[in-house]
Amino acid sequence: MKLKEECGIFGAISRSNDVLPLVFEGIFALQHRGQEGAGFAAVGEEGVVHYKGLGLISEVLERAKKKLGKKNAFLGIAHTRYSTHGNKITAENVQPFLTFYGGKPLAIVHNGNVSNAHKLRKKLEEDGTLFYTDSDTEILLQLYVKRGKFSQDKKNPFFEAKGAYSLLILEENRLTAVRDPWGFRPLVLGERGDTLFFSSETAALDAVGANLIREIEPGETIIASRDGSMKSIKFPKSPSFCVFELIYFARPDSIVFGEGVYSFRKKTGEKLAIKEHKMIDVVVPIPDSGLAASLGYAKKLEIPLELGLIRSHYIGRSFIEPDNSSRSASVRRKLLPLREVLEGKSVALVDDSIVRGTTARAIVKLVREFGAREIHYRVASPPLLRPCFFGIDMPTVGEFIASKRTLGEIEAYLKVDSLLYLDIEELKEILGRNSKNFCYACFTGNYPENSLPEGLSDEISRWPYPPILKGKKRILGLFEEKNEI
Amino acid sequence: MKLKEECGIFGAISRSNDVLPLVFEGIFALQHRGQEGAGFAAVGEEGVVHYKGLGLISEVLERAKKKLGKKNAFLGIAHTRYSTHGNKITAENVQPFLTFYGGKPLAIVHNGNVSNAHKLRKKLEEDGTLFYTDSDTEILLQLYVKRGKFSQDKKNPFFEAKGAYSLLILEENRLTAVRDPWGFRPLVLGERGDTLFFSSETAALDAVGANLIREIEPGETIIASRDGSMKSIKFPKSPSFCVFELIYFARPDSIVFGEGVYSFRKKTGEKLAIKEHKMIDVVVPIPDSGLAASLGYAKKLEIPLELGLIRSHYIGRSFIEPDNSSRSASVRRKLLPLREVLEGKSVALVDDSIVRGTTARAIVKLVREFGAREIHYRVASPPLLRPCFFGIDMPTVGEFIASKRTLGEIEAYLKVDSLLYLDIEELKEILGRNSKNFCYACFTGNYPENSLPEGLSDEISRWPYPPILKGKKRILGLFEEKNEI
Amino acid sequence: MKLKEECGIFGAISRSNDVLPLVFEGIFALQHRGQEGAGFAAVGEEGVVHYKGLGLISEVLERAKKKLGKKNAFLGIAHTRYSTHGNKITAENVQPFLTFYGGKPLAIVHNGNVSNAHKLRKKLEEDGTLFYTDSDTEILLQLYVKRGKFSQDKKNPFFEAKGAYSLLILEENRLTAVRDPWGFRPLVLGERGDTLFFSSETAALDAVGANLIREIEPGETIIASRDGSMKSIKFPKSPSFCVFELIYFARPDSIVFGEGVYSFRKKTGEKLAIKEHKMIDVVVPIPDSGLAASLGYAKKLEIPLELGLIRSHYIGRSFIEPDNSSRSASVRRKLLPLREVLEGKSVALVDDSIVRGTTARAIVKLVREFGAREIHYRVASPPLLRPCFFGIDMPTVGEFIASKRTLGEIEAYLKVDSLLYLDIEELKEILGRNSKNFCYACFTGNYPENSLPEGLSDEISRWPYPPILKGKKRILGLFEEKNEI
Amino acid sequence: MKLKEECGIFGAISRSNDVLPLVFEGIFALQHRGQEGAGFAAVGEEGVVHYKGLGLISEVLERAKKKLGKKNAFLGIAHTRYSTHGNKITAENVQPFLTFYGGKPLAIVHNGNVSNAHKLRKKLEEDGTLFYTDSDTEILLQLYVKRGKFSQDKKNPFFEAKGAYSLLILEENRLTAVRDPWGFRPLVLGERGDTLFFSSETAALDAVGANLIREIEPGETIIASRDGSMKSIKFPKSPSFCVFELIYFARPDSIVFGEGVYSFRKKTGEKLAIKEHKMIDVVVPIPDSGLAASLGYAKKLEIPLELGLIRSHYIGRSFIEPDNSSRSASVRRKLLPLREVLEGKSVALVDDSIVRGTTARAIVKLVREFGAREIHYRVASPPLLRPCFFGIDMPTVGEFIASKRTLGEIEAYLKVDSLLYLDIEELKEILGRNSKNFCYACFTGNYPENSLPEGLSDEISRWPYPPILKGKKRILGLFEEKNEI
Repeated sequence: MKLKEECGIFGAISRSNDVLPLVFEGIFALQHRGQEGAGFAAVGEEGVVHYKGLGLISEVLERAKKKLGKKNAFLGIAHTRYSTHGNKITAENVQPFLTFYGGKPLAIVHNGNVSNAHKLRKKLEEDGTLFYTDSDTEILLQLYVKRGKFSQDKKNPFFEAKGAYSLLILEENRLTAVRDPWGFRPLVLGERGDTLFFSSETAALDAVGANLIREIEPGETIIASRDGSMKSIKFPKSPSFCVFELIYFARPDSIVFGEGVYSFRKKTGEKLAIKEHKMIDVVVPIPDSGLAASLGYAKKLEIPLELGLIRSHYIGRSFIEPDNSSRSASVRRKLLPLREVLEGKSVALVDDSIVRGTTARAIVKLVREFGAREIHYRVASPPLLRPCFFGIDMPTVGEFIASKRTLGEIEAYLKVDSLLYLDIEELKEILGRNSKNFCYACFTGNYPENSLPEGLSDEISRWPYPPILKGKKRILGLFEEKNEI
Repeated sequence: MKLKEECGIFGAISRSNDVLPLVFEGIFALQHRGQEGAGFAAVGEEGVVHYKGLGLISEVLERAKKKLGKKNAFLGIAHTRYSTHGNKITAENVQPFLTFYGGKPLAIVHNGNVSNAHKLRKKLEEDGTLFYTDSDTEILLQLYVKRGKFSQDKKNPFFEAKGAYSLLILEENRLTAVRDPWGFRPLVLGERGDTLFFSSETAALDAVGANLIREIEPGETIIASRDGSMKSIKFPKSPSFCVFELIYFARPDSIVFGEGVYSFRKKTGEKLAIKEHKMIDVVVPIPDSGLAASLGYAKKLEIPLELGLIRSHYIGRSFIEPDNSSRSASVRRKLLPLREVLEGKSVALVDDSIVRGTTARAIVKLVREFGAREIHYRVASPPLLRPCFFGIDMPTVGEFIASKRTLGEIEAYLKVDSLLYLDIEELKEILGRNSKNFCYACFTGNYPENSLPEGLSDEISRWPYPPILKGKKRILGLFEEKNEI
Repeated sequence: MKLKEECGIFGAISRSNDVLPLVFEGIFALQHRGQEGAGFAAVGEEGVVHYKGLGLISEVLERAKKKLGKKNAFLGIAHTRYSTHGNKITAENVQPFLTFYGGKPLAIVHNGNVSNAHKLRKKLEEDGTLFYTDSDTEILLQLYVKRGKFSQDKKNPFFEAKGAYSLLILEENRLTAVRDPWGFRPLVLGERGDTLFFSSETAALDAVGANLIREIEPGETIIASRDGSMKSIKFPKSPSFCVFELIYFARPDSIVFGEGVYSFRKKTGEKLAIKEHKMIDVVVPIPDSGLAASLGYAKKLEIPLELGLIRSHYIGRSFIEPDNSSRSASVRRKLLPLREVLEGKSVALVDDSIVRGTTARAIVKLVREFGAREIHYRVASPPLLRPCFFGIDMPTVGEFIASKRTLGEIEAYLKVDSLLYLDIEELKEILGRNSKNFCYACFTGNYPENSLPEGLSDEISRWPYPPILKGKKRILGLFEEKNEI
Repeated sequence: MKLKEECGIFGAISRSNDVLPLVFEGIFALQHRGQEGAGFAAVGEEGVVHYKGLGLISEVLERAKKKLGKKNAFLGIAHTRYSTHGNKITAENVQPFLTFYGGKPLAIVHNGNVSNAHKLRKKLEEDGTLFYTDSDTEILLQLYVKRGKFSQDKKNPFFEAKGAYSLLILEENRLTAVRDPWGFRPLVLGERGDTLFFSSETAALDAVGANLIREIEPGETIIASRDGSMKSIKFPKSPSFCVFELIYFARPDSIVFGEGVYSFRKKTGEKLAIKEHKMIDVVVPIPDSGLAASLGYAKKLEIPLELGLIRSHYIGRSFIEPDNSSRSASVRRKLLPLREVLEGKSVALVDDSIVRGTTARAIVKLVREFGAREIHYRVASPPLLRPCFFGIDMPTVGEFIASKRTLGEIEAYLKVDSLLYLDIEELKEILGRNSKNFCYACFTGNYPENSLPEGLSDEISRWPYPPILKGKKRILGLFEEKNEI
């Protein structure tokens, strides 16, 4: 099972009443960032339009289109999402939330996670605020209304919020893009003709034929008006880009935090290859997450890459398991193993990461059944040890396979002949000078300064030290000692 | 746009009342052979069960499961299908057709196409037969009832039928598997414990954990009874296996007509590589149909393979085009091009085949936009020139891009710097001694002897000669002259 | 619970290509005759159209309309149905069955029930006929094809069938209406301009603005051609009209078997009033089936009629019972009792018939709870004692409340102060000279001569004699003795 | 077309965790008060449950049940609704709105209409309140939170709101029932065992087997706690009960504002009969709204009542008109006219009211076609002249048939031989001493004092005087002069 990004956001503003199809095209290009619900809000000559629903973007948009008829818009925002923290998503907490303030539309979409949401909510309730959902996005919306807007006093209405929030705020005649001071989640600005676009990823700019202007900076707010003017307000802080966007979440054809995603992933495979010490006959990627890394790995080692596991395209979410089938059966339905590739071979299986290890274990079993002689599992990122509080739906500490086991114990659990992770130092070498701008907390436990509320920081400091890190204590901020990265 | 296989079939018979989940698992593994409708019929201790519907197998089975409750079966057949010849599929012609004869259940599933259906139907109607559908499968069903069954007189009730028919016939206590004398479509026999399985492909045997016993031979009928006994009756003829099963239709992890599909496809890439005469910087597969061939091609040439076009997993059938988008827009939504891979490069795009050329043209345009310096299109099969009458949904003669153009004209249409097809001789070299057992009519127009009704043969002989074959006249049976293959 | 008619049929044929909306309007007017499925088949300038589905007619037609677009027809038939004999209706046995014979369309709709279906089916199977459903209508279809058509030799192809069959048969250019020799189910002929209509009831002729020409006679076949010509062929027998059509099934605004339905029902109430011997304060109809009879009853007695039980319009078929509610709770949801009407009164509750008595008992309980002092149940037909084999879905003998109880026992079961049925002689007096043309078998057990297969006749003769008929033996054909009605 | 009530509300609170099925049963009994959406919120041992959706209550509850499983509640409220003022209802403005305040649930359901909603909303927005819908119910919710609750200072948080609001407010451990000072909409209190119920109508108390304790008084608030205690707070004003609840909206088996609804309606028919001056052969009710009045009318005149127009039970909301049918065709599908009742007769058609007159006109045409000699239309209420601002969805002034025509002009439009309305004085005579407590503004234009915002009052004063009221000026408050009723 893979980690899930919680959201993707996209917005556009133009002088012409023609952006709605572009907003749809753009959010559709961010489908990989959230597959359980989608929605949009837009303002056009014919008024405000709004639609949201459960399901894939294409399904939601199809239903929306029937309602919209020929309506269009000059300003629109859209959102696609996963549910958070194992909560079942409901129609009500799909975004955007469209509200009315002073008779004018006000809507917001949010990628990220406010880490001190509980405390902020309590504070707002004490001031007489009523909440319609349990979403942290609604807190940001109320902060925006209650703490004064950017345009009035240049003060950041969100300064009380900790954690991750890349936001788009739709108002009657303007579109405001906000990125939290740490810059956890990506947010970029693009243009085509006299239309401005904001997007979680550059791939969505490509999808609408727009050019990338630049990233919104951490702590920056950009207010784009319908007349074409744009204003930037900054509240800088040292950046903490999410490295997992590069490792897994972002589309391979995006440029994220200044890095080409596909080429970054190929490099992780190359790094793994450098320290390879086993005799490998054939490199087999775990589709599709391990593809790019395995290309780099195979090329560097000059060992043939084969599609020994082929991904089936027909596993929908709706498939009822024919019998009480184990994860093995489920994996077998998704991945088609090729005996002619695997039989008698020493196989390197390459993936981007391992979370709980249950799927990896089932894959190993399957590959073994189809005749592999040796199986060497290669992971193109460091061991996952700590949960993310900034917008990624992660298991609890105890559920990570690596958080309580030594390397040997993981090898035994997966039943592989050897297991190799990328080291965090190797990861940073790939990033070079850019490396200091990233958050590695899921590998190190060293959460960015001041990004978590006190209670949570305390709780984290009491979690047991992971055996797999033995001997690496100094470079990690797992406890109180200073992080020297 | 790819060609479509019309059907996949799967069946099981056992002494125990436990085959229904296996039938579901098996047909699910054949999803790639038909995505518009599915159904099954089975006989168990609790009686006959039957369900069919439109949509993907998983969707149909989900609905079926709700109705079935805990019912199981000792004998079952299943079917998955595409619509034929551009006809919209309706609930009524989804298979199996379950009928009752003498109060006993009689159901049939069919992969293939009866080429003299029209004539046979007329003949049966003259004898007072009423038809409920316009399906050729119903003709086979009536032949089975009217011409006497295998078990009675050992005569083949289907001897009047021409063309392709791999059939499974369910009766109260037995399961009959029939393969037409040409053996156009695959059909294999497998076993696990005391359960026998019949399947279009071996991959579905793997899916249920069964071992492959052997192929049903062309012209062979196998009658499997519930008591475990099995009887074979043969009506032999020289085989005409469909080579396109190897080139595109079959799952890469299947063994079809004695050939490993994945390794066959890799070899087509290697063959292409041998005659490569251009300077190629990077090999980019067209996902997913070109993957295996491009691995063979890149390896042979020792040129890096890169995923310069990544397939999006989120294009459902339900996506409403946001605006009046061209095929370009549609291709762009499906394929994510990587600028860092393509820019400034001489790119070899590798696919298994080209049908109309419209998608290929749109892909070339996209790859050009993302910076490719030169584009060399490599096709791992000969030019498609003639329609199939044996179970593949093909365009008419005029719609094939190659049927009316020279190689240079196709290059101009696709806007590529060069275009290379596999030669039919090269295809045969890969197959070696097995090559004489195949049908290549879609490349040559040389349809297997006696497989078409007279009227149709006459019509075919009047089709114009394809310019691309200039100089190859002797080896092709496009006209009256004898085919020497 | 009320008895259910199994079907309604409607057809039209015209020189103009404009009958489809009329066929829809007509079948919609017969909705009360079947609420579980509907369908139609039609032939027009644009070819054959066909649609059928589960649900109410309006729902099925709504779906059909989306598919039809602007297509119309010059010839069409339609059907609405209940399921038979407690079988769950499936999409497959919804009518019409559209088949093709000699390449021409052939479709049939059927109201009634073939009593010797089992035997006929067996016979046809022995001749090599394959059946696709377990419907007796399919038997009639095969008889039509196999036994020679009317037009060829003037012989009735249905002469082997016993029981009830009012049929409409659609062929390429003509519409054939058939009524069985007993004439159990109604079938009328109407016209408007140059369009001819066939319908189960006259109310559907009114709905399309057509004039009633006449009933199709029992044993009559009418063949109407597209050129406007009409041919009648007769196979006469003594008629056996279903008296329950008048009592309950037919729409009150229809004229059925020569009787105005509403005025017939009022007369049954008047007859009941004549023998009333209790002091009644207020007459309360059981809505809606008791309305007409109670108007006649109240008027004759000169006692006020009050709506003491009002029918709720919001009980859909989809309502999930909020808790494990008894029939009482269900009745209470459907019928709203008025305390101000009922309290302290001697109430006559009037209904058309009682089947199992469970609903009647629940209504009595409810009326009692709302304060009625005395409850006198008045039933405007004789006690139901025997099942129908001619197209009405009836309980088995043992389930009729009256089949095993004396009048006093039924009063005790219903907890009424008195109970009065209409006598069969009174029923006949209302019908006058027409009375000899009716079937009363559900009240008497005296099934029309030769209408049942032998085995069934034997079984019936062994059923126990109903206690409620004590002393009426002579006038009833419950056993072997001759029926003298 | 009939007027539509906008809502029905129901609530229950108990010591036991068992009220949810009762809340469902209760709201289901109020289905006639709103058919476009329904919802509920409840608090139980297993937490808060909440569900709302579009459609009939039965449909919404069916979907809810699947989600609820075995969950129950000790406290719950429910709502059923129509859309207001021609606005299409959306899922978002279905009630109840469930919000959270101080981490505790807070939900509200509302029957009525706040006439100064616009002004109040503006005021609240100025104080920083964000609105999620355009519903006036959300305004009441914010007033409740912002203006201080009842329990704290005994002040009415709703004192700023004008117009109609019968409310139920759910909080963690208590249920508050509020009725506006005018008491426009009904609200009653009932009990069964230790459960208290609040309902729009007494019929819903009957449905759950509860006894009526009393009406909530106009201006009264009742706070019921889970421990069984109940507190009443009163803000009295002179009452203005909606007389249309008695004339049309309420269920006939309810007691509303102290009046038995069915017997009130019968009396309106009797009043009409007293002034009848035409020779009537037969009284025919317009089903179902004219039934009770016609019973009173027929009885008083001693003329037979006949069901000359029978209501079809099969007209669903989903029926697609077969062709471009006029209102005539639509009326004909809904009402089945009986020629044997109507032909050659002088018919009195009795209904409760006439709104636009289009349906009445179509009915008259139909009755004429089925042979009526004379048609006398009798309306059991005064002419509708003015819109309601207190919870009834009414047409604009110009759309009422009576607002711009004389009696003769209406007769000509309807094509009746005579037309008779009930006079407002006759209406008051029926109500006797209770008559001074009612609002008759839809007949008189005399809206209750202070119930409308100033701007609206001004607009109303400029509407033209209805010709039908000529000579009745003094008794009506249509202009500035004092209303003397």
